[in-house]
Amino acid sequence: MLTHPELKATIEAQLATDDANDWLLIVNNNQDADTVEVLEELDPEQTASLLVRLPSPHFASLFSYLSPAYQDALLKVIDQPEQLRLFKAMARDERVDVYQRLPEQEQKEILPKLAKQEQEDILRMAAYPDGTVGAVATSSYVAVPENMTVIEALRYVRKNAPTMETIYQLYIIDKDQRLIGTLSLRELMMGKDDSLIKDVMRTDLVSVNANEPQQEAPDAIRRYDLLAVPVTNGGDQLIGVVTVDDAMDVDVDESTEDFHKGGGTLALKDVSLRQASTWTMFSKRAPWLLVLVFANMFSGAIIESYEDTIVTYVALVFFLPLLVDSGGNAGAQASTLMVRALATGDLQLRDWFKTLGREFWVALLLGVAMSVAVYGLGLYRGGADIALVVSISMVAVVLAGSMIGMSLPFLLSRLKLDPATASAPLITSIADAVGVLLYFYIAVTVLGVPTT
Amino acid sequence: MLTHPELKATIEAQLATDDANDWLLIVNNNQDADTVEVLEELDPEQTASLLVRLPSPHFASLFSYLSPAYQDALLKVIDQPEQLRLFKAMARDERVDVYQRLPEQEQKEILPKLAKQEQEDILRMAAYPDGTVGAVATSSYVAVPENMTVIEALRYVRKNAPTMETIYQLYIIDKDQRLIGTLSLRELMMGKDDSLIKDVMRTDLVSVNANEPQQEAPDAIRRYDLLAVPVTNGGDQLIGVVTVDDAMDVDVDESTEDFHKGGGTLALKDVSLRQASTWTMFSKRAPWLLVLVFANMFSGAIIESYEDTIVTYVALVFFLPLLVDSGGNAGAQASTLMVRALATGDLQLRDWFKTLGREFWVALLLGVAMSVAVYGLGLYRGGADIALVVSISMVAVVLAGSMIGMSLPFLLSRLKLDPATASAPLITSIADAVGVLLYFYIAVTVLGVPTT
Repeated sequence: MLTHPELKATIEAQLATDDANDWLLIVNNNQDADTVEVLEELDPEQTASLLVRLPSPHFASLFSYLSPAYQDALLKVIDQPEQLRLFKAMARDERVDVYQRLPEQEQKEILPKLAKQEQEDILRMAAYPDGTVGAVATSSYVAVPENMTVIEALRYVRKNAPTMETIYQLYIIDKDQRLIGTLSLRELMMGKDDSLIKDVMRTDLVSVNANEPQQEAPDAIRRYDLLAVPVTNGGDQLIGVVTVDDAMDVDVDESTEDFHKGGGTLALKDVSLRQASTWTMFSKRAPWLLVLVFANMFSGAIIESYEDTIVTYVALVFFLPLLVDSGGNAGAQASTLMVRALATGDLQLRDWFKTLGREFWVALLLGVAMSVAVYGLGLYRGGADIALVVSISMVAVVLAGSMIGMSLPFLLSRLKLDPATASAPLITSIADAVGVLLYFYIAVTVLGVPTT
Repeated sequence: MLTHPELKATIEAQLATDDANDWLLIVNNNQDADTVEVLEELDPEQTASLLVRLPSPHFASLFSYLSPAYQDALLKVIDQPEQLRLFKAMARDERVDVYQRLPEQEQKEILPKLAKQEQEDILRMAAYPDGTVGAVATSSYVAVPENMTVIEALRYVRKNAPTMETIYQLYIIDKDQRLIGTLSLRELMMGKDDSLIKDVMRTDLVSVNANEPQQEAPDAIRRYDLLAVPVTNGGDQLIGVVTVDDAMDVDVDESTEDFHKGGGTLALKDVSLRQASTWTMFSKRAPWLLVLVFANMFSGAIIESYEDTIVTYVALVFFLPLLVDSGGNAGAQASTLMVRALATGDLQLRDWFKTLGREFWVALLLGVAMSVAVYGLGLYRGGADIALVVSISMVAVVLAGSMIGMSLPFLLSRLKLDPATASAPLITSIADAVGVLLYFYIAVTVLGVPTT
């Protein structure tokens, strides 16, 4: 296999010629994912001139590996006959995605030029909104009748292999298109030649509903070790499948979204961080930062109300960042653990109470350990009284921060909101206000109200 | 398919009998993943009594779905002949994992009782340390000679289907065990009966080295849309494959580890949050919290050196949490975005400089927006001078926090350290110290050094 610079030089040499055979050989001898990495570094016009020279299956396959943004740029410079050739050769799920991103005018132009069946397929699959299982499903799957024999089914699969998204999972449906059985190609191959499909198929069906969130598809595939999960509509009819490669992409996208939310950024849907504009980045980051500015004003207001205490015991201010940060850090730890465990299914809503009990003891231990760590510093910088205030406050803020960080994701989940909203910055800001309040309350209790 | 409570009642009824047929029927009619969820709620003794009644393939399959902790508990109550039966029936990769967790004494007892080939397989695969590709690979794959015909290969696959981890990807190796070609079962089925394998196989090989980090396997599978990726040793010899189901598990585990690190918690290897003890949770969370306590002491020391300024302009303290948190929040956003983009490959080390430039402008815009938001509050609470200090400081701390948060993951990556170490709490603590420094420096510059 060629390295990226070698492949780039080879492909760029092709731009100077219009030889189709050499270029086809290059495409065949390299992985599409690698070839596409080079193509995305070329101008769309250059890439277009290379792609249209290829036979339809190669054209469509390379196109499907391109990023959505580059695909759209490319479609603007490919003429209609070539667009049509591409549309006819693309995998069905890919075709629906590209179709949906076309301007309305172009949608209207291209749709009538496709075969009747292709038109219906696009319109049906395009009906599922982004983020649902239906939107990542493909209607390209192998269905076999229950009265076929194993050897007949094997021949049927072999014949249909070139055009199907996956041939490794077979579906058996009744006359109303309802799923009644599944069979992996491996199970089919293990059957006797003259056995009937209905006698070897599995009836312990796993399926997901097309209207559910897209994460349901990879979850089912991972849980049941499938290569594809069947997708049904409200009436239990089979409308498509989600294959494991698409499911893996959904898994990674959803994790990335949770990561971004965990850092207090709005989800960057389909946007590569490499290509995102300054304005996009600003608009995704500003909302939470501004909300948190106002949240942090509470901390300021609390401090203001203890103005006299601060002026009398100015050493208290030295420990302010240390204490409020420690509460925020413990809270960020707790919320991150909970958000992820709720996302992977390691924890369920019903585990809240049990987890709360353990969190109390963990946080108490953490608070005491950190309290010991700062006691000496308190003694050195502020004397015995300040040291006492700082130690007690440390236990209190770590305990409070942890309980808030642990509970908020559960609470959000209970309210049917996304637990990932309990981001580290949000928890830090809440824990800070609570920490400031606890700190000065403990200070006034131990040191007494100053009498100025 | 039965619901969890229904399945639980059905299985518990089986505990009272020792009928093997009914129980086998239940296992066959339900997904193993669902059955195992019930079994894990029973005592290991109860589960053992159910499992040993089953034929070996069912016994081994259910066992493989159990959590590692429960598997270990189960092995303690299963007698040796049954253990041996289990070992012989388990998938090869699963068997190595279980073997490695056995106490040394038991390893020595069970190994000689296995077939020669099984012994060698275990010892060879057990040599790869946890976290490498080798440790998640299986040596169970279909290899075909290059001079076989398509129809012969199809018969061969069919014959070997029951015992192989995957039959959907075939490997062609030379006499020195070196990989020379691959062929998907789909491509094989699309070939003509009498074509030779060497004429239909693919030679644009993708493989991963057994000693590389385990994340390489799912990355290759996702990038090239594979169902399994071949694993080679240092000498380019094929030693096994990683299948897509195992790769998906690696993907999720690695994401979870990054999440935990991002929240400032050490990785909880193979530990379920549901089952983790108070002590485990404490020991994973305490180290970073304690390190950060000492980091935060810098902030305190900086504040202490500005004692006179604070006493003179006590209103400055009201804005302290607001300003330092804002810098920390912007930094946490930036680091989270970078850590994830570096993990998914969206950004590479070489993108540092370009990203730094964009980050500067994004952070400047964010700082100005937040500065505008706090100017009024500064005016109201502290007058024109304080408002000026607070506004300038806001731009400075957001800019500083963002640049630190953005750069640290790249820097860690450059030093061959894990970028995920740049957690939200770490960035917050660093940004806080820098923020305090900037704030008081700007305050003294604008307001002048107090003359007490």
